[in-house]
Amino acid sequence: MGIFSKDIKTMDDLFVHQLQDIYYAEKQLVKAPSKMADKATDQQLKQGFLSHLEEAKTHVRRLEQVFQMHGTEVKAVDCPAIDGIIQEADEVAGEVEDKSVLDAALINAAQAAEHYEITRYGSLVAWAKQLGRSHCASVLQKTLDEERAADKKLTALAEGRINLKAAS
Amino acid sequence: MGIFSKDIKTMDDLFVHQLQDIYYAEKQLVKAPSKMADKATDQQLKQGFLSHLEEAKTHVRRLEQVFQMHGTEVKAVDCPAIDGIIQEADEVAGEVEDKSVLDAALINAAQAAEHYEITRYGSLVAWAKQLGRSHCASVLQKTLDEERAADKKLTALAEGRINLKAAS
Repeated sequence: MGIFSKDIKTMDDLFVHQLQDIYYAEKQLVKAPSKMADKATDQQLKQGFLSHLEEAKTHVRRLEQVFQMHGTEVKAVDCPAIDGIIQEADEVAGEVEDKSVLDAALINAAQAAEHYEITRYGSLVAWAKQLGRSHCASVLQKTLDEERAADKKLTALAEGRINLKAAS
Repeated sequence: MGIFSKDIKTMDDLFVHQLQDIYYAEKQLVKAPSKMADKATDQQLKQGFLSHLEEAKTHVRRLEQVFQMHGTEVKAVDCPAIDGIIQEADEVAGEVEDKSVLDAALINAAQAAEHYEITRYGSLVAWAKQLGRSHCASVLQKTLDEERAADKKLTALAEGRINLKAAS
């Protein structure tokens, strides 16, 4: 999307732009969990990343469904925010030597991505409702609920085991 | 911090790295609210951005205090995640013509930044507690609470007024 054009004229345009942005993000994030699972040492964390990979694939398919329900071409636009989050995760993960400290860093990186998605899906659900597109809203809500649940699981894992091991 | 060095050896190193990352982010975010307030048309939103500017200045000072309590040099490291979030906000804001749609886009952009901060401060508080640095944890917790409150205010504003206006 051209930076100098005024391409977003209506709320509907903003909704579609945000769909394209999160579609790009989800497609990037599908690649991340298996790399993170490779690096993680805690078995429960490793398993958590692998099961989130399956969820992320479902999220991509749901977005394609929402594009279709909306009657819009399935398309991704660059999302510098998720690129930055992933770049930072790679950098930090590359710098950590101790395995349990690395687990804590991986959780932190994954949560930054989850929170980004929670914000964007939160807006998408609200906007879909305002636009009277309740079918789109309910599909997007499913993903939002799963992202929130994934974030809570990561917090529980971090607070219950990983940080304790890493700080010991 | 060198990408190819293994500079993070302990949980304490990870804590300091994260402090430096969020310090950079807060310093960038201090510049954002006044630009956003200029662009916003809804008076309550404009006011919200301006009061968050004051909060952001307090957050920067609190981080400097935590660096000192920890006995570490006050320092920022590049944070590609917040750079990406800000770049995306600038791009989208530049593309929106309709004033009430722009307000909805501005809230969405601000919430992406809030959520980034909520994740990072959440980890910092948890790590400070695990490291037995309860004084650092309680200072960081204050900011975490304020970020969460700011996010809730933005959601209430979006759902109550802005999105309705923008979709009408």
